[in-house]
Amino acid sequence: MTAKIIDGKKISDEIKLEIKGEVDRLREKGIIPGLAAVLVGDNPASALYVKMKAAACEKAGIFSEVIRKDKSSSNREILELVSKLNQRDDIDGILVQSPLPSQVDEPAITMAIDPAKDVDGFHPINQGLLLAGRPMFEPATPLGIIELLNRSGNNPSGKDVVVLGRGFLVGKPLAAMLSNKAPNLNATVTVCHTGTRDIASHTRRADIIIAAIGKARFLTGDMVKPGAVVIDVGTNEIDDPTHPKGKRLVGDVEFESVSQVAGAITPVPGGVGPMTIAALLQNTVKAAKLRHHLK
Amino acid sequence: MTAKIIDGKKISDEIKLEIKGEVDRLREKGIIPGLAAVLVGDNPASALYVKMKAAACEKAGIFSEVIRKDKSSSNREILELVSKLNQRDDIDGILVQSPLPSQVDEPAITMAIDPAKDVDGFHPINQGLLLAGRPMFEPATPLGIIELLNRSGNNPSGKDVVVLGRGFLVGKPLAAMLSNKAPNLNATVTVCHTGTRDIASHTRRADIIIAAIGKARFLTGDMVKPGAVVIDVGTNEIDDPTHPKGKRLVGDVEFESVSQVAGAITPVPGGVGPMTIAALLQNTVKAAKLRHHLK
Repeated sequence: MTAKIIDGKKISDEIKLEIKGEVDRLREKGIIPGLAAVLVGDNPASALYVKMKAAACEKAGIFSEVIRKDKSSSNREILELVSKLNQRDDIDGILVQSPLPSQVDEPAITMAIDPAKDVDGFHPINQGLLLAGRPMFEPATPLGIIELLNRSGNNPSGKDVVVLGRGFLVGKPLAAMLSNKAPNLNATVTVCHTGTRDIASHTRRADIIIAAIGKARFLTGDMVKPGAVVIDVGTNEIDDPTHPKGKRLVGDVEFESVSQVAGAITPVPGGVGPMTIAALLQNTVKAAKLRHHLK
Repeated sequence: MTAKIIDGKKISDEIKLEIKGEVDRLREKGIIPGLAAVLVGDNPASALYVKMKAAACEKAGIFSEVIRKDKSSSNREILELVSKLNQRDDIDGILVQSPLPSQVDEPAITMAIDPAKDVDGFHPINQGLLLAGRPMFEPATPLGIIELLNRSGNNPSGKDVVVLGRGFLVGKPLAAMLSNKAPNLNATVTVCHTGTRDIASHTRRADIIIAAIGKARFLTGDMVKPGAVVIDVGTNEIDDPTHPKGKRLVGDVEFESVSQVAGAITPVPGGVGPMTIAALLQNTVKAAKLRHHLK
């Protein structure tokens, strides 16, 4: 069996086109959704992510402002910046790109963002509303994964889903979201992690496996039920002397073996990554509509 | 095989004794932990719960005040009451007994409680911190269940746990808590619910089953792996002509059949119920210590 490839790039392009249509309609009402992205320091990966997010905003007609702060910025400076962004009327969504330098108290910064502008969905209030099953903003990566499943014909409702990883960014919120009672969720979710006795015994019974464990090529073909849907959230750099840079990006899934067993699989790159950006745009438009009391 | 009975009454008495010792030490420093319980209307079950909570406080040396409001109280009246309790220096914990009359907006009341006094752990901020794995106050029933497991020699770490039910009060927060990385948690958790295709296939592989599904005698012996630990969170009233009142209280577990298969089981009543009250007292003492910057 050779798995069908779930094309995250193509599906995210469809979503971005829908968002553009929605932004056009908002602009006709004089509303321009706006996203502020704060980049502290000069981490190249962070700079690239912020650049990609800003470019995607502009393409969809969303106003985007990137605010660069020196890596020596104090906690207070970042708090004051967030406070100003909270008050600005042209800004609907605020994201502070992680990771932050050690002198900045990341949980305090997250807590300082107005929950109504928290398009990353990491404010404890938004995490709590998510757990309670009445979400306002959900984190972009889990939201993107749920969109990816539903739009690729793999609605998780009634399915046995195994999530590998209990991280704050993906595993924990995704498990809570997938368990919620809604027509596009409603899955029976198991969360596996470093403390799990026998991970393969769980993945082998799963209809859908979501690998967000942060270990290169962790999930192998022998751990997958024939026909299962496999979503790879991992982005790990491994050494590869055959590549010009001497290394390359791989997921948490051993693509070669798993794609022989699974029914459908996401590639890395081109799977979950583009969906995360699409979900951020969705949240920004949602924030603009909420602030203007539109449905 | 006949299951060992996990005596929630006895274990909760041990905890209450520990709490009393801790309260005595706080009183020596001039600190008297205080709990305010708000009871709106005349629901007999709610009145009984509040009475039991207040009595347990007093026995442990915790100051307790029950505030009774008429069932016709407006949303604004309850909000104003909560606001006053937030400001009172002698009150460390506030609980507003659920359910509230329909004219009162329960989520708004929960949101109005100072998160630092939210000993019921239902404020979205506390739910969010719980999901993020850095909890302040955790809801009493899940907290009590985790204490019950650990103090009865059934540490869930590394175990396969199946939670039946995805409710806001027990299932959802309990699953998130049990998945967290901590020596007394760290379980591999599956949440089953009305959308689950084959619940028995999950319960039969579980080391620990926690039934919080709200259906009388739902879990039967044939659904349980020999030797498993079964925690019954249910409290369902069923008709029973042999009882003086014509009805009696049963759990979500069919005790007769499950106790023949399980290794350990909680009774109803006398299992989870008393643990919930002990956990509320623990949270109240924690709130008092946090407010006075004590560890």
